[in-house]
Amino acid sequence: MKLNCDLGESFGAWTMGLDSEVMPHIDQANIACGFHAGDPLVMQNTLALAKKYQVSIGAHPSYPDLVGFGRRSMMCSPAEIIALIHYQVAALDGMANTQGLTLEYVKPHGALYNDMMSKPDVFNAVLTALAQYPRKLALMIQATPEINHYKAQAKKVGVMLYSEAFADRCYDDEGKLLARSKTGAMLNKVAMLAQVKQLVEQGSVTTLSGKILALQVDSLCVHGDNSAGVQAISDIKALLG
Amino acid sequence: MKLNCDLGESFGAWTMGLDSEVMPHIDQANIACGFHAGDPLVMQNTLALAKKYQVSIGAHPSYPDLVGFGRRSMMCSPAEIIALIHYQVAALDGMANTQGLTLEYVKPHGALYNDMMSKPDVFNAVLTALAQYPRKLALMIQATPEINHYKAQAKKVGVMLYSEAFADRCYDDEGKLLARSKTGAMLNKVAMLAQVKQLVEQGSVTTLSGKILALQVDSLCVHGDNSAGVQAISDIKALLG
Amino acid sequence: MKLNCDLGESFGAWTMGLDSEVMPHIDQANIACGFHAGDPLVMQNTLALAKKYQVSIGAHPSYPDLVGFGRRSMMCSPAEIIALIHYQVAALDGMANTQGLTLEYVKPHGALYNDMMSKPDVFNAVLTALAQYPRKLALMIQATPEINHYKAQAKKVGVMLYSEAFADRCYDDEGKLLARSKTGAMLNKVAMLAQVKQLVEQGSVTTLSGKILALQVDSLCVHGDNSAGVQAISDIKALLG
Amino acid sequence: MKLNCDLGESFGAWTMGLDSEVMPHIDQANIACGFHAGDPLVMQNTLALAKKYQVSIGAHPSYPDLVGFGRRSMMCSPAEIIALIHYQVAALDGMANTQGLTLEYVKPHGALYNDMMSKPDVFNAVLTALAQYPRKLALMIQATPEINHYKAQAKKVGVMLYSEAFADRCYDDEGKLLARSKTGAMLNKVAMLAQVKQLVEQGSVTTLSGKILALQVDSLCVHGDNSAGVQAISDIKALLG
Repeated sequence: MKLNCDLGESFGAWTMGLDSEVMPHIDQANIACGFHAGDPLVMQNTLALAKKYQVSIGAHPSYPDLVGFGRRSMMCSPAEIIALIHYQVAALDGMANTQGLTLEYVKPHGALYNDMMSKPDVFNAVLTALAQYPRKLALMIQATPEINHYKAQAKKVGVMLYSEAFADRCYDDEGKLLARSKTGAMLNKVAMLAQVKQLVEQGSVTTLSGKILALQVDSLCVHGDNSAGVQAISDIKALLG
Repeated sequence: MKLNCDLGESFGAWTMGLDSEVMPHIDQANIACGFHAGDPLVMQNTLALAKKYQVSIGAHPSYPDLVGFGRRSMMCSPAEIIALIHYQVAALDGMANTQGLTLEYVKPHGALYNDMMSKPDVFNAVLTALAQYPRKLALMIQATPEINHYKAQAKKVGVMLYSEAFADRCYDDEGKLLARSKTGAMLNKVAMLAQVKQLVEQGSVTTLSGKILALQVDSLCVHGDNSAGVQAISDIKALLG
Repeated sequence: MKLNCDLGESFGAWTMGLDSEVMPHIDQANIACGFHAGDPLVMQNTLALAKKYQVSIGAHPSYPDLVGFGRRSMMCSPAEIIALIHYQVAALDGMANTQGLTLEYVKPHGALYNDMMSKPDVFNAVLTALAQYPRKLALMIQATPEINHYKAQAKKVGVMLYSEAFADRCYDDEGKLLARSKTGAMLNKVAMLAQVKQLVEQGSVTTLSGKILALQVDSLCVHGDNSAGVQAISDIKALLG
Repeated sequence: MKLNCDLGESFGAWTMGLDSEVMPHIDQANIACGFHAGDPLVMQNTLALAKKYQVSIGAHPSYPDLVGFGRRSMMCSPAEIIALIHYQVAALDGMANTQGLTLEYVKPHGALYNDMMSKPDVFNAVLTALAQYPRKLALMIQATPEINHYKAQAKKVGVMLYSEAFADRCYDDEGKLLARSKTGAMLNKVAMLAQVKQLVEQGSVTTLSGKILALQVDSLCVHGDNSAGVQAISDIKALLG
C-alpha cells in the first residue's frame, strides 16, 4: 500500500503545505501544474524535493481556477478538458525531465477529480487525454465498488489505473466519501488508523452504517497541510511498517 | 533564407492573426505558450496547422502578462526566467509530441526578446534554460553586428543560435530596429522587398543613414496580422523563389 | 423599447466587437468589468464612448473565467457570487464616476446570466448583491412568462428589474431561447424584424411550434460582433422609428 | 504618529498575514485590491475587520502580477497606470461603501510604490489618477528628504500626501531604505524602538553612516506577517502611548 499526497500547492509569495516535512514519508507526490496552484518555480522546487527523497511523481492538473483553488466545478467541454490536461501534464513532464525525473501518473485535482468520478464524459475526456499522450501514464482515481467498470473503460484505451482510498474520511454505503460538512465525515486518529489497518489487511472499509465494503486500493491519500497531518502520515507509515 | 512568423496568438474567444492563411507560406512557426497568448486549445490547433503544412515549430515563451501581451518588460530574476521558459517550452513540447511533432527551437516573445538582446543576464538566463532542457533546442535571436559575441556565449553552453532579421523594419547604424514611433521605421512594400533582396544576395541592410551593415541572417520574421501582412509574405516568398 | 448591447469585450491586445459603430445606435451599453473581458483601459475607453453618445451604462459582471469568456458555468457559492458582483460593479461604477457618468443597471454575463435565470439561489445571490450595493441599480434579466415571479422576488429586496428579449433568437414554448446548435435557433433578417415588430406592437413572440407567447419586454438585446450585426441593429432602429 | 499596515493579502485558499491580530493595533489598513493579492471575498472580509476596529482604510493597488506579488517592476505606460489605479481603487471604494465605510487614501504596493518614488512619470501618473478620481483621496508615499518636492507636485493637482517611514528598516544618507540583502538593513527590536522614538520626538532618523536625517512623517509602516511582527507592532504601540 503506497502513500500519495498533494504537494507543490504554494503559489508565488503564498505558501501552502509542509512539503519538505511530508516528502520523506510518502511514495507518490501529486504535483500541482499551475492551474489551481503551483507556479514554475514552485514546480521546479517540488520536483527537486521529490528527487531528493526518490518519490514517484504524478501530475495534478486542474480546471483553470486559481482563486477557487480548482475546487469549483466548471462546465468545460471534453475538448477543453483534453487540451488543459495535455498542457499541464506536458509542462510538469518536461520540467521533470529537466531534472532527470520521469513522470509516472496523473491524478486530477479537486473539482476535476470529482467530476471525473461522477460524470462519464469527463472520465472519458481524461482517459482520452492520457491515451493520446506520447508516453504511458497511469491515471489515479478513487477506489470505489465500481472500480472494475472504470478499469474496463481505461483498458479499452490502454490506460492503467491506480486506485486510492482516503485514510481519514468516512465512507457511505455506496463507497463515496461523506461530505466534509456532515457529522462523522472526518475520522479521528484512532479511527483513521483502524481504517488503514482494515484496508491493508482485509481490503475493505466499514461504512458509516456499519456495512463492510470491499475496496481494491493501491494507494492511500494523505494530507500534509499542517503538523497534525504530518503526524498522521508518520503514524500511518509506522502502522504499514 | 527561411521565413518565421509569430502564430497561435489567439486566446479563448479572441482571435488574432490569419494563421491558416500564413501557415502555408512560412518555414518556422513561433507558437505562443499561454503566458502572453495561446490557450491549450489554441496551441493544439496551431500545432495541427503546422503539422498540415510541415512547418518547423518553435516555442514563443513570454513574461506572464496576458493583459499586456508580453510587451512590457518585467523585472524577473534569472531563476524566474529559467523556470517560466521551462514551463512554457515543456507545455508546447509535450503537446507537439502528442501530435507526433518535434519542437525545434525557442524564440522568446516581446519584452522578453528585447530584454534578452539588451540585458546580458537575461540572455544568460535564456541560454541556461535551454542548456538545462533535456532535448537540444536552438535559440532564435535578432541578427546584429555583434552576433558573434552572442554565438560565443551560446556555444559555451551548447546552444545553437538562429538569427533573424526583420523584413519590413528600418535599421539604425547599430543594427537596431528604429522604434516604431519614428518616421521611416516601417518600410513600404518596395523598400521591404529591396531589403529582403539585399539581405539574401549581399547579407546586408542599408541603415536609415545610408550605411551598409553586414548581417548574418538565417530567417526573416514576417507578420500575418492582417491581409496586407499575408500579401507581403506572399511577395517575399515569390522574391525568394 | 430600448436596445442594449454587450460592449467593451476587448482585452489587452485583442479586439472584439465593433463598439464604435454600435454605440451610436443603442440605448444601453452592457460593459464588461474585467472577469470575462475588458481590462481597465478598455473599460475607460468604452465608458468614454458611451458618454459621447449619451448611452445609458450597465455593468456586465461575469464568473472569473477569462479563457472561457465567462461562458462556462462555475459552481460558485452565493457568498462568492455576491463578492464578485460587488467587486466588478464597483470597479466600473467608480470608473464611470471618474468620467462624470452614473451606472444605471447590472446585467450578468454569459454563464452567470444563464445560472441566474435557471437557479434560484444564483438569482437570490445576484439580488442580494444589488440590494446591498450603496446605490440603487436595476437588474436586467431575460423576459420570460414567469417574469412576475422574478419581479416579486426583486421587489422584496428593493431591486428594480429590466427585462430583455432577443431580437434574432427563436423561442420555445416555455419562453426559453432555442439552443444555438438547433435548427432554426437563429432568425434570419426578415424573421428577426418580424419578431421585433410583434414584440413592440403586440408584446409577444411566436414560438418555434407556432404558439403566441406574451412577454413583457423593456429592452432588446442586439449584437455588434460584426458588420452584419451592426446592419441588423440599424434595421431594428429604423423599424422602431 | 499613526501606524499603517498592508492587509488583505490572502488570496483564495492561500492565507497571508495575521490580519485579525494586527487590525486592533493599527490606524490605517492598506488593503490589497486583487492585482497582487486580495480576491473579492478577502477584500470584503478585510473591510469588515477594519470596520470592527474603526481603522481608516486605504487602497493598496499594484501592477497586475499575482504570481510575482506585485514586487516586479513592469514597464506600464502612464495611461495604463492611471487606468489600473482607477479600477482597483474603485473596486475597493465601492465595496467599502457597501459596508458603510469610506475609503480615505491610496498607497501603491510593491514595485508600483518603488517606481512611484524613483520615476517622475510614474509619480505623475499616480497623482493624475487620484486627481481624476471623483472623490478626494490622499496619497501615501515614502517620507524622504525631498518630500517638499513631492508635495509641490501633489498640490498642483489638489492631492494631499501622507508620508510614511519604516520602523524596522535602516536608512542610508539619501533617505532611502538599505536593500534588504545588505547587512544591517533590518533593525533588531531595540534599534527599531529607538528609531521610532527618534522619529516621534525629533522628527529624524540616524542613517547607517551615523548622519542625522530629518524626515516629516505622518505614519509608520508596520508588518503583520508573523507573530514577531505582531509583537513589534504591540511594542511600538506601547512606546507611542
